[in-house]
Amino acid sequence: MELYEKTKAGIKPAYEDCMKKAALRLDKLIKPIGSLGKLEDLAVKISGITGKQYNSFEKKVTVIMASDNGVAEEGVSAAPQSVTALMTINMLKGVTGVCVLSKHEGADIRVVDIGVGSDLEYPGLINRKIRKGTSNMTKGPAMSREEAIRAIETGIEMVSELIKEGYSLFGTGEMGIGNTSTSSAVTMAFLGCSACDAVGKGVGLTEEGYRNKKSVIERAIRVNKPEPKDPIDVLSNVGGFDIAGMAGCFLGAAYHRVPIVVDGFISAAAALTAYRINPLVKDFIIPSHCSEEPGYKLAISEMGLKPMLDLNMRLGEGSGCPLAFNIIDAAEAVISKMATFEEAMIEDDFLIDIREN
Amino acid sequence: MELYEKTKAGIKPAYEDCMKKAALRLDKLIKPIGSLGKLEDLAVKISGITGKQYNSFEKKVTVIMASDNGVAEEGVSAAPQSVTALMTINMLKGVTGVCVLSKHEGADIRVVDIGVGSDLEYPGLINRKIRKGTSNMTKGPAMSREEAIRAIETGIEMVSELIKEGYSLFGTGEMGIGNTSTSSAVTMAFLGCSACDAVGKGVGLTEEGYRNKKSVIERAIRVNKPEPKDPIDVLSNVGGFDIAGMAGCFLGAAYHRVPIVVDGFISAAAALTAYRINPLVKDFIIPSHCSEEPGYKLAISEMGLKPMLDLNMRLGEGSGCPLAFNIIDAAEAVISKMATFEEAMIEDDFLIDIREN
Repeated sequence: MELYEKTKAGIKPAYEDCMKKAALRLDKLIKPIGSLGKLEDLAVKISGITGKQYNSFEKKVTVIMASDNGVAEEGVSAAPQSVTALMTINMLKGVTGVCVLSKHEGADIRVVDIGVGSDLEYPGLINRKIRKGTSNMTKGPAMSREEAIRAIETGIEMVSELIKEGYSLFGTGEMGIGNTSTSSAVTMAFLGCSACDAVGKGVGLTEEGYRNKKSVIERAIRVNKPEPKDPIDVLSNVGGFDIAGMAGCFLGAAYHRVPIVVDGFISAAAALTAYRINPLVKDFIIPSHCSEEPGYKLAISEMGLKPMLDLNMRLGEGSGCPLAFNIIDAAEAVISKMATFEEAMIEDDFLIDIREN
Repeated sequence: MELYEKTKAGIKPAYEDCMKKAALRLDKLIKPIGSLGKLEDLAVKISGITGKQYNSFEKKVTVIMASDNGVAEEGVSAAPQSVTALMTINMLKGVTGVCVLSKHEGADIRVVDIGVGSDLEYPGLINRKIRKGTSNMTKGPAMSREEAIRAIETGIEMVSELIKEGYSLFGTGEMGIGNTSTSSAVTMAFLGCSACDAVGKGVGLTEEGYRNKKSVIERAIRVNKPEPKDPIDVLSNVGGFDIAGMAGCFLGAAYHRVPIVVDGFISAAAALTAYRINPLVKDFIIPSHCSEEPGYKLAISEMGLKPMLDLNMRLGEGSGCPLAFNIIDAAEAVISKMATFEEAMIEDDFLIDIREN
């Protein structure tokens, strides 16, 4: 509770003066003003986060929160609940999408068991289990307020520990059967939108399954009546340990002033939760790809953010983060390595020829 | 002429059976079917190009065609014509956008003077100058048919030479003041669309400059009446040496069965030209980012292609290509390194526990 309150209260705005300096440098580079679009926006945003004009990220990591959701017993997912544990272990074996993409981009992952439904042990697995899965949200709150805060604090702690290990660029990922349902419920609770707007087919649901999913989520909202102005109430009633843990990562990253990347819908619902806890968080959040889940767009645009990759991805796991890391590095290459007009014009006999011609 | 005809006639379709095999492998990986979206599409497409299920691209290069356009004297660009030569040299110095981004992605560039308006010499510059800039297309054809074919053949030759140097993944870039005007004219000629649809503000034009640009391009079309069914007629009347050279790169890459990436609008207009020369070319073309230029979307969707990066970029130079190279490598990591369901389930005591629980 103390860590949560301290973190929430300790987030400071982006450094406006550093952003202005970065923008000034970008405008002097040998290119039409603004022509590198979001690469320029990224370089400016990152200066606002770190307070430095030039940044380089030697160590990057995607934190993957794995947990089960009681609502899975309502048949909201095409996959059985056991897949959560199975895929959590596959993460540690390095053979899932986010693993392969992270390795490709020279980034690491950390896998946190924050609430998987079975006892798991595997080398590298970080055990921070709150409980073996949340309760079924159609029958009452998914978790207690204390559990929600403990899950958030787990995320905050993960980020500070990883910063001590030298990581300076973060991504957020998850594994949890049923978590597009909890993410839809969280998005609906915060934004007041309908199931038709915020609920997608997740992973391979039939039309009938999709109708059921929407009605299950509507029921969870009706039963629990989450209060949109109280993010902990929303999380504890219709959220998940994974969403709460990731929300903690966003808060922790903002507190420690390191950039943190959103992956898909679940991660965006967590970012939205963190944003509702403290709106300043959005200055530290970088979107990656545009998820195929309809609720993603609602959550991300509520924060005024725009994704940079358009890959029709809907895997989750944090798979979009390593691809975004590469673009963030590219943005840093632009601001630090491109020549300014001044640098490019001076000391060049060739130019004199051109001018004389 | 001979090389052009031989290349045009020698392009074979994508290997359908290899694409099927790649798709089959992707469907077996531990992820919901299709959930890696365009990464999966890319892996399939590349198998269709090379005939191999797994591909890796050790050496990647963006070919930059630099040339001047006679139409620049009509005031269609905010920048003076001398910028073409200046920036061509800056490419060789490694300080422009495409240079910095290529270096970041471990890719190379090659800079070809295919028609810069002044005599240029610089270490690394490849001199294939057709002529010192095209003629002003508002007063007659920009170039002769022979020149257009020679420029195309230059592109074809560049690709085969670079393949001999070990390059297996290509990008296309350009430098040439006035080339958004020629690209608009080429797009309008092929697609029959209006200046309002295909002409953008390029680089920092005022409203008045923009009106002038549209009327200049309309005049060029009216004066030359390019025949849409004859791509060489379109190129020679309202194209540029850069567009023709890049069209040659697309044809050469398709002939030699190597993937080749489109950058922005000028590069898309060149791809469209190559596609109109032989529609099979589109199976070898990979789009990168969605350019801000309105004509880009027309050209790229005519070929049924969809960009994967949404970065609001409008720099040109080939700057989108190195960013796409990284995503192409990511797609290859997915198909070759992710585990199949079978691989992930077998030899694992843990799984037996899960099943028994």
